[in-house]
Order: sequence, then structure tokens, then C-alpha cells
Amino acid sequence: MSTGTNPPTYTTLKGMGLVNTAFKAEDLLKLRNGNLGIGHTRYSTTGISELQNCQPFVVDTLHGKIAVAHNGELVNASALRKKVMRHGVGLSTSSDSEIITQLLALTPPMEELDTPDWLARIKNLMTETPTSYSLLVMYKDVIYAVRDPYGNRPLSIGRLVPISRLHSSGAEETDTEGWVVSSESCSFQSIGAKYYREVQPGEIIQISKNGVKSLSVVPRPDGDPPAFCIFEYVYFARPDSIFEGQMVYTVRQRCGQQLAIEAPTDADVVSTVPESATPAALGYAQQSGLPYVEVLCKNRYVGRTFIQPNTRLRQLGVAKKFGALTDNFAGKRVVLIDDSIVRGNTISPIIKLLKEAGATEVHIRVASPPIRFPCYMGINIPTKEELIANKPEFEDIAGYIGATSVRYLSVEGLVSAVQSGIESHGKDARISTKTTRFGHCTACLTGKYPVELEW
Amino acid sequence: MSTGTNPPTYTTLKGMGLVNTAFKAEDLLKLRNGNLGIGHTRYSTTGISELQNCQPFVVDTLHGKIAVAHNGELVNASALRKKVMRHGVGLSTSSDSEIITQLLALTPPMEELDTPDWLARIKNLMTETPTSYSLLVMYKDVIYAVRDPYGNRPLSIGRLVPISRLHSSGAEETDTEGWVVSSESCSFQSIGAKYYREVQPGEIIQISKNGVKSLSVVPRPDGDPPAFCIFEYVYFARPDSIFEGQMVYTVRQRCGQQLAIEAPTDADVVSTVPESATPAALGYAQQSGLPYVEVLCKNRYVGRTFIQPNTRLRQLGVAKKFGALTDNFAGKRVVLIDDSIVRGNTISPIIKLLKEAGATEVHIRVASPPIRFPCYMGINIPTKEELIANKPEFEDIAGYIGATSVRYLSVEGLVSAVQSGIESHGKDARISTKTTRFGHCTACLTGKYPVELEW
Amino acid sequence: MSTGTNPPTYTTLKGMGLVNTAFKAEDLLKLRNGNLGIGHTRYSTTGISELQNCQPFVVDTLHGKIAVAHNGELVNASALRKKVMRHGVGLSTSSDSEIITQLLALTPPMEELDTPDWLARIKNLMTETPTSYSLLVMYKDVIYAVRDPYGNRPLSIGRLVPISRLHSSGAEETDTEGWVVSSESCSFQSIGAKYYREVQPGEIIQISKNGVKSLSVVPRPDGDPPAFCIFEYVYFARPDSIFEGQMVYTVRQRCGQQLAIEAPTDADVVSTVPESATPAALGYAQQSGLPYVEVLCKNRYVGRTFIQPNTRLRQLGVAKKFGALTDNFAGKRVVLIDDSIVRGNTISPIIKLLKEAGATEVHIRVASPPIRFPCYMGINIPTKEELIANKPEFEDIAGYIGATSVRYLSVEGLVSAVQSGIESHGKDARISTKTTRFGHCTACLTGKYPVELEW
Amino acid sequence: MSTGTNPPTYTTLKGMGLVNTAFKAEDLLKLRNGNLGIGHTRYSTTGISELQNCQPFVVDTLHGKIAVAHNGELVNASALRKKVMRHGVGLSTSSDSEIITQLLALTPPMEELDTPDWLARIKNLMTETPTSYSLLVMYKDVIYAVRDPYGNRPLSIGRLVPISRLHSSGAEETDTEGWVVSSESCSFQSIGAKYYREVQPGEIIQISKNGVKSLSVVPRPDGDPPAFCIFEYVYFARPDSIFEGQMVYTVRQRCGQQLAIEAPTDADVVSTVPESATPAALGYAQQSGLPYVEVLCKNRYVGRTFIQPNTRLRQLGVAKKFGALTDNFAGKRVVLIDDSIVRGNTISPIIKLLKEAGATEVHIRVASPPIRFPCYMGINIPTKEELIANKPEFEDIAGYIGATSVRYLSVEGLVSAVQSGIESHGKDARISTKTTRFGHCTACLTGKYPVELEW
Repeated sequence: MSTGTNPPTYTTLKGMGLVNTAFKAEDLLKLRNGNLGIGHTRYSTTGISELQNCQPFVVDTLHGKIAVAHNGELVNASALRKKVMRHGVGLSTSSDSEIITQLLALTPPMEELDTPDWLARIKNLMTETPTSYSLLVMYKDVIYAVRDPYGNRPLSIGRLVPISRLHSSGAEETDTEGWVVSSESCSFQSIGAKYYREVQPGEIIQISKNGVKSLSVVPRPDGDPPAFCIFEYVYFARPDSIFEGQMVYTVRQRCGQQLAIEAPTDADVVSTVPESATPAALGYAQQSGLPYVEVLCKNRYVGRTFIQPNTRLRQLGVAKKFGALTDNFAGKRVVLIDDSIVRGNTISPIIKLLKEAGATEVHIRVASPPIRFPCYMGINIPTKEELIANKPEFEDIAGYIGATSVRYLSVEGLVSAVQSGIESHGKDARISTKTTRFGHCTACLTGKYPVELEW
Repeated sequence: MSTGTNPPTYTTLKGMGLVNTAFKAEDLLKLRNGNLGIGHTRYSTTGISELQNCQPFVVDTLHGKIAVAHNGELVNASALRKKVMRHGVGLSTSSDSEIITQLLALTPPMEELDTPDWLARIKNLMTETPTSYSLLVMYKDVIYAVRDPYGNRPLSIGRLVPISRLHSSGAEETDTEGWVVSSESCSFQSIGAKYYREVQPGEIIQISKNGVKSLSVVPRPDGDPPAFCIFEYVYFARPDSIFEGQMVYTVRQRCGQQLAIEAPTDADVVSTVPESATPAALGYAQQSGLPYVEVLCKNRYVGRTFIQPNTRLRQLGVAKKFGALTDNFAGKRVVLIDDSIVRGNTISPIIKLLKEAGATEVHIRVASPPIRFPCYMGINIPTKEELIANKPEFEDIAGYIGATSVRYLSVEGLVSAVQSGIESHGKDARISTKTTRFGHCTACLTGKYPVELEW
Repeated sequence: MSTGTNPPTYTTLKGMGLVNTAFKAEDLLKLRNGNLGIGHTRYSTTGISELQNCQPFVVDTLHGKIAVAHNGELVNASALRKKVMRHGVGLSTSSDSEIITQLLALTPPMEELDTPDWLARIKNLMTETPTSYSLLVMYKDVIYAVRDPYGNRPLSIGRLVPISRLHSSGAEETDTEGWVVSSESCSFQSIGAKYYREVQPGEIIQISKNGVKSLSVVPRPDGDPPAFCIFEYVYFARPDSIFEGQMVYTVRQRCGQQLAIEAPTDADVVSTVPESATPAALGYAQQSGLPYVEVLCKNRYVGRTFIQPNTRLRQLGVAKKFGALTDNFAGKRVVLIDDSIVRGNTISPIIKLLKEAGATEVHIRVASPPIRFPCYMGINIPTKEELIANKPEFEDIAGYIGATSVRYLSVEGLVSAVQSGIESHGKDARISTKTTRFGHCTACLTGKYPVELEW
Repeated sequence: MSTGTNPPTYTTLKGMGLVNTAFKAEDLLKLRNGNLGIGHTRYSTTGISELQNCQPFVVDTLHGKIAVAHNGELVNASALRKKVMRHGVGLSTSSDSEIITQLLALTPPMEELDTPDWLARIKNLMTETPTSYSLLVMYKDVIYAVRDPYGNRPLSIGRLVPISRLHSSGAEETDTEGWVVSSESCSFQSIGAKYYREVQPGEIIQISKNGVKSLSVVPRPDGDPPAFCIFEYVYFARPDSIFEGQMVYTVRQRCGQQLAIEAPTDADVVSTVPESATPAALGYAQQSGLPYVEVLCKNRYVGRTFIQPNTRLRQLGVAKKFGALTDNFAGKRVVLIDDSIVRGNTISPIIKLLKEAGATEVHIRVASPPIRFPCYMGINIPTKEELIANKPEFEDIAGYIGATSVRYLSVEGLVSAVQSGIESHGKDARISTKTTRFGHCTACLTGKYPVELEW
């Protein structure tokens, strides 16, 4: 084998593990000689041989390299995979993101004399697959930011502020330094950028040295509403991220308030499974008038759980992760708020811990509805059989997990907590409201998928 | 060089880094063949050559090996060091813990025919140095747990519960499996042990297969009160630890209440610098009647801070660690509770962050008094010159850090918050109250050291 | 991105570094569940991002996965690359081995209903590119071993002997355990296999549970002789490998004999630059009648050469790699045999070392002709400008490197040393002699390339 | 525990593994700020917890730090260990080198006002233990190089040559840059130093900015000859090292010649087990008139032998390490020279390999006598029971290992091969010949130990 022809114009850096352990400072310094770049992180099984699954996918085409980063999961991945392979392309990975990359190179046929029309190629890709994908496509000195017509996965644009002005009072900014795009807006602050706006469902945006330009908005089939994943609000997103004009934290707080209305409890204190359920717990406390206290303290040093040297430690389980703040609840009736219950094997030992430490009653209130259906659009939800809500035990879920009582937020309550905020706050003056009609994917709760599933 | 004589009867395992990264599971498995062991963790600079500073110190004596773990710092380390070296002992490290170990071997002289009287040797050590040390000394099948006469560092005993009974309702336990000793009682829960009692100031306890036995209590000079480090309550200990019969979390909450009494504020919301200041913030909110909200969300993935690839990221500083929960405080006057301010360089960018995000006023309330003096008893406090409370800026601390106002808890307020709980709750029926007279070291706040400092 | 469809039927394991450091035992154990496999090693620059260049290349096609390992370099890589990309395939690497893999998938077009005719696809590939490649192509339960029509790179077949019979006297073996294919036959012994025969130029061999079967021999253009790389004999191969029926060691010894005839020397002793030049040195000694002695002793622990901490050590250079065996040559005239001189910067400090240690004369005799031309068929030879034989210094090469005299083997001498052995020993009864006409590529010595170079 | 008093004046760097993998370049750079240093390497079992056994041992004394590196093994280690511990010193390791270090600190008692008389302390140490030790003791700006009175372990002095003069023709060197001391003189060349002379048995040498100074020579008991380990010549030393004025390679060659006289063979070729037996093989060939050929080629990439993934590979054993150079010996009678046979499990599979590949006879000739007794002076020789020469199989050693015949060099032959060279070449004009009377320790061959063994 020989390498050496077609020298790379992109510098690629991939690694396994959390970003701050996967890369060394000296590696990052190698990335500095450029003014354009895309990156990607994902949950993955370990193993160095998986490195080839790491995004972005970079391939060389007749007109030079393109790099593609993809958040989401194609509902028709299997059919598209065959289509690409029937073309004679050998696929190196089992990833649908590679399919996207090869599709962009494949159609329409490329000639050496042509200038490649990437906008047309992206539009063509969007006719091949309806959802779910938020994409970044880098080619030479341009990045295209693309969100699928259903807007299933989030995508936001931020503006890099000159550092000298970062903390100034906000005068008209004319000397902006650049633009960033991210699934979650919370990342903007970390690099000194400010939230600008969301990429709209179906929108193709071009980012170049000439700034941000909206090239096109690919429509959905008539009558189909957008289908932004409601679980981003419930669980996935960091609370300081902004979707549809509202802060995730505030939505979660409203979920807690709504839960207090739907499922009031005769108890002494309200608390949280730290840290993700805290906004809902504070909302529940506020609505119910019950005092908010902390009952669990996180052991920050229980990170990696390696092979337990003996049975004893394995059995201790969650006791290693949390300390009980006994004085705050001993002899009291506790309402414990959790954000969601997927398999049911985390909350059970927590309840035991609290009861052992003196709680007289432990009422579980879940700030989202039970998950009953698999997601085919990018969220790693257990199979239907594994979901606690589909198990016989769910009939007596309280008994099963050892709680005094268990109540969930209703689907309607969740949707209302999400959508009430968009109406009042969610105005984005920069783009036409025609395309901002909102709508949410609740498939994992209701089984109603935004598009027909092809397999 | 040759090894091989005197085969080790102890298995030693040392490593650099957090416990769960420093050791591999297979290493830990090697430690299983025994029923007695001591361990140690400490803050340290990195570098493999520092491994020899890792405790426990294990040395071979005429009568076999002893292993010593030490929490604290000897106030007369320098004089003792010379004493040991004058004896002809070469010291391998600069650690005062090695001095303790060699002193135990050195005096009184050992003869091969004797049985070594370790109790006498420990007592002799305690006459050589008044404070500060909590020690574990392991010899053959016995562990001695020792706390210095001033009780400056904490030391607690826990009882290992048979796992079958761990979650039972608490019948009389007669078949206990063993005993554990720890600086902080919070660690007991993680291994399925239950808090039993503290080692008292000056107490020497023997742990063997015959159980726990209090051998002796070495007295302080007449009139000297105990001097348990008050900063364990303020900052160091995990909130679910128990000292002097009370939970640290509750003491911090009382500090917040006391602070609200001493330093009330005309504001809209009370919040915390997560997570250590949260109990004080909840206490402040409760006492003041102001609503408690969260204003900062921690970025859990900012762990290792490696060399920043560019100036921009360096300047962003704290913005990478926290996200602003804007909706909760925009347009409002915020009381922000912090647990302590040592150098003053953390709180300042947080205040900027909140103001930028829309807080109209940011009042800092610190749930402990200013630190003005160095600690010579084991706490790594900056030099007098580095302490913000000793700098000219402290005159206008609010202006310096950009706060609307700054107020601290008084020393009297802190002492009262700590000691009021001991009187009401802190009863330990198992030991005579003669030795439990309490008293706290406030040297870093007041400059009054519990013993005369020798250098 | 999502993975999960089309579960891999091949287990892939790749790593950087020497084989025995790149892989852990537990990784290798994962590879045990199969009875077919291919592997690849190559020289490479370091860097984890290069991992994707590691072979074998595995791609999924409409009919399942194929894996391809390639030794060699396509002379028309650039044209083929464009051809593949014009087809719409995005290429992930700059490697010509990926081109081979994609070409196999691409032509002729695949239909789902078809059974893929891999023999036809391999033949098609061989019409697209004449040389140089030795290939292993794995598909389901078959491995194809392919050598290009010019036979530029070596490829041998070995027979895995049942371990029980490994050291027996060689009765008829009917219960063979399997087959192995390798560029160099020396590897067979390491795994208990015995040399069986070479894959002939242009031959396509199928290995399956039914044994080894020669499927086809693709011919060269009329009149073109084979072009096996003569440098495999001179330098690359391990001395115990067998090519064209003869052992490499013996060829090198004949080169030394021929060199003694072409370039006799009036000297006292003959020696070697260990270890690769030893057979030639022994041949030279034998032919010339001069005594053979060792003058240099290798420092086995100078492996990794990391950044030298100071100028002194950098300047010492080769002195760190060799010790002078002074007593064997002090006061004597030394003939020092080297196998080849590429850049000329290794031999020079060795000569200095010997002279300093007391050699009165140092005559360099090189057991191969000067390299004057680049190789485009897989051998990493420096550019024309870097080659010592193309530099002005070559006019006075002896003066330049500090030798008393320098002489090279002639091209004719080398070819004769190689080919004289084939005629006498090189008979392979198993295949027709029509295709075994031999001929060697001497392009790097003569500039006569076996095929026209296309760029 | 606290560190910080008595800042180290020595920089220490220790690691596990080969020197060039154990240390990073950046670590070595930290060692540059000094003009004095000592180092140590040793065979060891792996495991990071062994790091504390790494030398040099550095201890702080009343007068500052000393660092000690030790090659050898104290014959009376056990008694000295008790003596040190009876003094009250706790010992951190099981190493006799730590005993040496503590003994130097211990006696005579130190007073703060004194200047420590290290010469007296070293002499005192030498009265406590007769052998075996070569030591480097570093204190402030002086290094003491010490060899035990019996000279059991080697120790040589080299002169660092200014790099500008390194390759010059050897004019009077007046501007030397420094001095180095090493067990083996072969290391001098690697750093650009030249062999100066040996440290004599019992000699204490001082190295400082004033150069090298011989302080004292501690005598042996009357009549005791020196006892330099004869196995350094046979096996341990690198062939280009110089002991007693002669090169190790030459001694080994003489052993081969002597062996040819003592054990002539009717055979066709002489060869070597590479690489250590090569000088003896060349000596045997020269004396016997038989041609020297290579029969084995080393596989350089079989380094680490990790857990073999299957039985097959385990059984292959030595076949992975050597390739057979068949053409050189097929159909011939081979004399195979080995330097020593300790356990007998290496040579056996080599003989099988040669016979399988066509050798008609394999005669083993061993260039040293059988090892029959354990070494208590630093050489890691197997127990008496494990030694092949003490096993019943030794009666028919040839049959046991599968050789046609086996013959060893006699003890007298070895001693004569060693000592004949000292008489003719070994003149060291710089020191009085009174102390250079030579004599060698042959205890492992004869059971005659140089001193009475105390346990």
C-alpha cells in the first residue's frame, strides 16, 4: 500500500473517551492553522477499533474533500444503505452517517469539469430521507448547516464575540469574529459566543467568510407539523440550553409545577434526585407549597465503576453514589421528584436508602410520562421489552420499586408545559413565522411517529 | 543490590491520581488475601517520583513491619526531624509522617528478646508532639487508631454490617463483621458500614479480632480545650459526614441562617455557587423568606484543565465551568451565597457572568468569616500575603470583585452555629462526657493557635 | 449517527506500533472464534489518526463484507483514483489499497439477486493495473491470494502442520490443519507451518475449506518478463526466507563472493556491519581467503531514539549503537562489507569509530550496486536528489565518507548472483514451467522500469 | 502528612522498564541543572509498587542528603539488617542496599556541629561487610566510588572527552570535561568517554571538581586473593567491556580456542547460538580449522512474550525466536557453541530445529564449565536443584537435550583462558602492582566461596 497522492487539506483528529481526556494539548495545537472546522461527540462502546466510527466522516471526491458531522438517525437507513451499495460503493462502517456522506458524493454523477453544486446535492439528500438529521457539511471554505424538515434534532447558531467585547454592555457589534453552530446552545457560552438563532426545520444555511446566509427551506409534506424531540426538554439537553426561544430549565420547572397540579401529595418535604431533577423539584415545591430540601448528596468521586473486587461492594450499588442527608428527612414524608424512569433500576435502591435512613414515606413523582415505545430517530432507548412501563411490574410500580406511591406527568401535561412557553416567549424576529409552526415528537410516549417507518 | 530476605507480610499498593483511576481492578484483587488493612489518600503534586511520599509508610523493625497512615501536620516537625536524624536515621522523604513512623521504631530502644510495647511507643510519640495527627498504626494483627490530644483532625469509627442485614430494620446486631476507621464518616455508607462513634481527642483505640477497645486517653495540658478544626465544618468535609454528633450539612444550613440574621439583604432571590454553598443558601433563604432559585448550572465535563490552545479560551475562564440559568434571575436582585472566599479569583468572574446575563444586583454573602492567618496543622491555606482578607483590596472587597455588596459571617456567628448543635444533639452515650468537652480551632480566622508554634 | 444494522461478520483489530506492543493478549483472544483471517503490517508515520490507514480495508457490499490486504504500490494509482471518484465514491484515505478495495466492489455493477463473481472482479482489477500488488481478498469463507502479473512483490504459501507432527520425520501428511499465505516464507516457521510454494506472477489462488486451488494465471503483455524486486534479495527480506526456490542468505553470500572477485582488496581482515551484511562478509572472506572477524558489537538497548537532552549526545550519533571490538582490528587493514549504501550517513561514523580505535585502513565493499533511481512500486527509496549515488560527493565517495577505498558490486554481478541460484536449485515441480520464466526488476539501479509509468 | 521542610537538593527520577522507555525526554531534561549525578539499573520483577526498590537510595541526614547506588549482594546482609534495626531504624525495603545507606548514616553517631567524615564512614562500612559491593556514594559536590576488598563486582573509571576532540588523533588532553564511573566500561563509548582505569579491589576513590583522587585501599585479610566474578567474562559483560586490562570478547574467543583443544570434534561446520556465543565459536573454528557458518537467524521482533493465545503457539517455543539457515548446514555435522547452559531448556529446541532442518549431527560444545553451586554475591543463579548440572539428567546430558554429544570447558581451562591474558596485556601503569594481584571467584563452578558465608 502506498499513500501520498492527494495531500489532505483537512487536519483530522479523533479519539475515544471524554473530549478532555481523548486529546492532548499538543494535538489540539495542531488544529490551529485554519479558520473553519467541524467536530462531533457521541456515546459509543469503547475499543480502539471503533475509532473509524468517529465523526466527522471525511471523504475525498473528484472535487476535493468533504467532511460531514451528523446528529440523528435516518429512519430509512436500511433502504438507503442498499441503494448506495447497489451503486458499487463499499461501505467501511455500519453507520448511517457514512451513508449520508457517500450519498452527497454519489448523486448526481460528478464530472471533473463541473463545479459541484453542493446545495443541489444536499437538497437531493433531503428528498431521499425525511428525518432525523442535523448536519454540518464542510467543503473547502464553506460549511453548510442543515436541519431535517421535521426539525427532529436541534441545531443552533451562535456568534463568536471578540473577546475584548465579551463582557461589555452590548453595543452594536460590527466586528464579529465568526460563527458557530451546535446542537445545544449551552456550548456557546463556554467559548465566548452568544446565542443567535436556531436553524429552522428543513433549513439549509451557508456559513462562509461572508457570514451566515439562509439558502433554502425544504418543506415537509403538506400538513405534517414539525417534530422536535420532546425528550430533549425532558432529559437530554443541558438546562441552560435554549430551544424554540425558551430555556430548558424553565420548561422542566413548569413540568414540576404541572406535576404538582396533576399529582398532589400529602407530605412534609419535596426533594430531588440530583442533579437533573432539581428544576422540576423546585417547581413542584413552589406549586405545592411544600418546603424544598436536599436528601441526597452526590459522591463526586464515584466515576468509573470498575470490576468490583467482591460481592459485598457489588451489592452495595447506589449506596456508593449517594450519601443520605439524614437530618433533612428523618421522620418525615418525602416527595422525591425524578425526571424520568426508564428501566426502574436506579430509583429503587435510592428509595431503600431513604427509608433506611428514616423517611416514613417516599412518594415518587416523575416529571415526564412513562416511556412505552422505542425511538428510531437517534435516541438510545431500551427495547420495548426492557422498558419498565411495558413490564407486568408496572401494574404495581410502587410496590415493585418500594415507593409509598408513584405518579407520572401526563403526556398532555408535558406537551402543555413545553408549548405554553413557546407561545409566550418564543419569538424569533429574524425569520418568518410561517416556518416556525411548532410541534413535537412524542413517539416514545405515544407511539405516534412523525413519519411512516420504513424497514 | 539484592532483595529477598525478610519476605513482606503486608501487600502494599500505591498510585498517583484519583483512587478509581490509580488502581486497576486486578491490583485490588491482590489485596483480598487478608483481614486487616489501612489506606490513605492525599492531595499531591503529580509526578511518579512522588510515589515514595504516598502513605501508608511501611517499615520493617526488629519485631516485624509496622504501617502508619497520618492525617495532619506536626507543629514541631522540624525539631523532631533533627532529633530523628541525630539518632543516625537517614530519612527518605521530607514528610513528617515518615518522622512519626521512625519515632515509633526508635524509642524506647528495641531488643530482639522483648515484645514491643506499641501502646507505650504511641504514648511516647504523643508526648513528643501535641498536634496535629490522626493516625492508624498497623502491626501484625492489630490496628491502633490514634487522635491527637487536641483532636485537631477528625477520626471516626464505623461498624461493618453483614450485607444480609444492611437494609434490615435495625434489630440488635450481634454478628457484626468488622470495624472501619475513617477521617470522615461519610465513607462508611459507601462500603455498607454504619457510624459507630468518634475517636476522642487523645484517645488510643485498639482494633483486633476481639473488636474495638479504648486503651487510653492522653490528656492535654491543664486548661487547654480541644481544638477541632472548624474549617472541616465550613469547607472540607462532605456534607453527610458527622462530627461531634451533628451532620455537617445541618451546620452549614445554620451558618446560612445565622448569616441571614447578621447580614440581611434587600433582594429578590437567593442562590448558591454550586454545590458546596447550597445548604447555606437554603438556610439563608429559609431565614430571610426570600425565594431560593438556581442561577448557575455546572458543566460536568470540564474536569482536567489542560494547556489552553489559545488566549481566547484562557480568558474565558470560569465561563467554561458554569452555564447561566438566565430566566431565573434576569432583571432581578440576587443574593449569592458562597461558603468561603480564599483568594477571591473565583467569585469575581461569576459575578460578571450573572451581571452580563441580566442580574441587576449581585450581593455576595459568605457563610464563614474571612481567612486571615496561615494554618500550621495540615490545611493547605495560602500564605498570609496571598489571602484576599490580608490584601489592600479587602478594604473595598465589593468593588474589587464587582459585587453590589459583600458581607461575611462573624467568627462568633460561626462558632455559635457549630456549637449550638453539639449541645442539643451531640450526645454520645458510649463514652464519658469528661473527655468530650468541645472546643474548636479558629486559628485561620483569629490567629489564636491551640498550642505554641515551634519552628 | 446510528450504528447497528448489518452486524459485522468479521472481527477487526488494528493498532499502531510493533505487533507485540500494539495488541494486548486479551484483544488477540477475541480473534479466536473463526477459522479464516488476514492481517497486515506496514511501516508508517505515527499518530492515532493514521489508524484508518491500517489494513486490511474492510468494506460492506451488497453481498456482504470483503477484506483486502495489499503489499505493493499501484503504478497507475492516480488515474485509478480519479476513475473511482468519478463513479461517485468518496474515498476515506489517500491509500491506493482503498482504491483496490473499492474497485473490487464497483465493477461490474452488482445486483442484489446476483451471486458476486469475485474471480471475475479480481481479473477485472488486474486488467486495470499491471503492478505492483500482492493481495489477499477475504469474502465469507474464502480467501483469494493474488500476485500481480509481473510478480513484483513476493507471495508464498505455507502449510500448517499439526503440532503433533511438527518435529516428526516427515511421513506423508494427510491430516494437514490449514494453509497460510505470506509475503515472506520466514514467517511460516514461527507458527509451525512449512513452506509449500510461491504464488506465481499473475496467479489467482483460492483458499477454502477444500484446500488450495489455483484458479487462473493472468498473463503479462507478450514478451514482458517477470519483474520480481531484486532488492528483496539485497536488503528487505529476512535471510531465511525463500524466493524462487533459493534462500536469501545464500544469495547474499554469493553477492559477497562475487564482490570479492570484482573488487579484491589488499587487507588483513574482513568484517561486517552487523547484522544484515554478515552473509556477504562471510562470502567475501571465503572467496578472498582473508580471515573473518567481528569489529563491531551492537548495543541492543538503543532502541527508541528520543529527543536527545543535549548536543553532546546528539553528536555522538552512531557511537551509541555500536561498540568497537578493538583487539580484533587495531593496527590492521579492515575490509568492511555493507549490504547497501542509500544516503551515506550511517557508514561514515562507523568508519571514524574504527579508525579512532586503531584500524590502519578501512576499505568499504558494498554487496550491491549504487541506487540511482526512485522506486514507484512500493519501496520507500529517497528522492533522486537524496540518493548518495546522485550527489556530487559520489565522485569521491571514499573521501566523502572517510574510507580508504570504496567499491560496489556491479549490476551484472548482482543479477548473476541472484539468477545463477534459480537455475540450479529453483525447480518447483508443482506448476508448469511456462509461467516461471524469471526476470528481476532492477529499476532503482538501472532506471529500466518493468512497465511504462503513468502519472 | 505535610511535606515542604528541607527542600531536596537532589533531583531524583525513577522508573520501571528499560531506560529508554521508562523515562520521557522531558523528564531527563529536568536532570540537566547539575554537574554531578549517579544512576542505577537492575533486573527486577515488574509492578509499580516496586518503584521504592529502585536505586539510588537517597536519604536525608543531619548534614544533608546522601545518595547511594550499589551493585552486588552483601554476604552478611541478614546480620547487618538486624544490627541496623536494633538501632531503632525502620527499614522501608527488603534491599541490602538500603542497609548500606542507613549504615553510612548511623555510625559513628552524628552531631550537628560536626563535619561528617564520609571516608571514615565508608571505611567503617567496609569493616562491617567484606563483599560484594561496588558503590557510588554522592554527598553534596563529591562522589565516592568504592569497590569491595575482594573486587567481586567490577567498577571502572572513564574520562569524558570534550566533544570537539572526540575524534581527533589523540593529542595530550588537558581540558578534560569530567569523569564517569561504571560497572562496565562499554558504556563509556556511548557517551563519548574514554576508558581510564579500574577501581582496584578495596579502593575508595573521590571524584570532585578537583578530579579523581584515590583516598585509600582497604586490604583483605592476609593471604586472601581477590575474587573478581569469573562469570562476568563468561556471560554477563558486554563483549567490548574491559576488565583487568583485557577485552571480554578476546577472553571468550580464547575460551573457544581452549574448548577446541579440550573437546575436539569430528564435524563439518562450527556455528553459534547468536549472538553471545559468537566469539567462542569463532575461536573454536580458528583453533579447529573447521569452517565457521551461521545456522540460526534471530527474529528481532520477538520481544515481549505475552500470554500465548493458544496451545499451538506455546508449543512452538523457540521456533518463534530463530529461523534456520537451512542451506548452510543441511546434510552436515554441526558443532554448535553455546556460552553456558544453566537450565538446559533453551538449547534443546534449537537442536531439534537444526535436526529437523537437515543437520545430520549436532555436537554441543559449551565454552564454560557446568554451574553447580548457587551464587550469594549478586548473580541471580537458579537454586541448586534447578541447575541442570545437579540433575540426574546430567548423567546423560546429550541424550536429555537431544544432542549427538555434549562437552564443557574445564574450570582450569576457563581460568587459564582468563588469566593468561591478564599476565600479558593487563598492565595498568597508573597504580602500584602490589594491589593488582589477580584472582577470580569460581564459586558457582567449584563451590569455593571467597569468604565464609554467614546467614
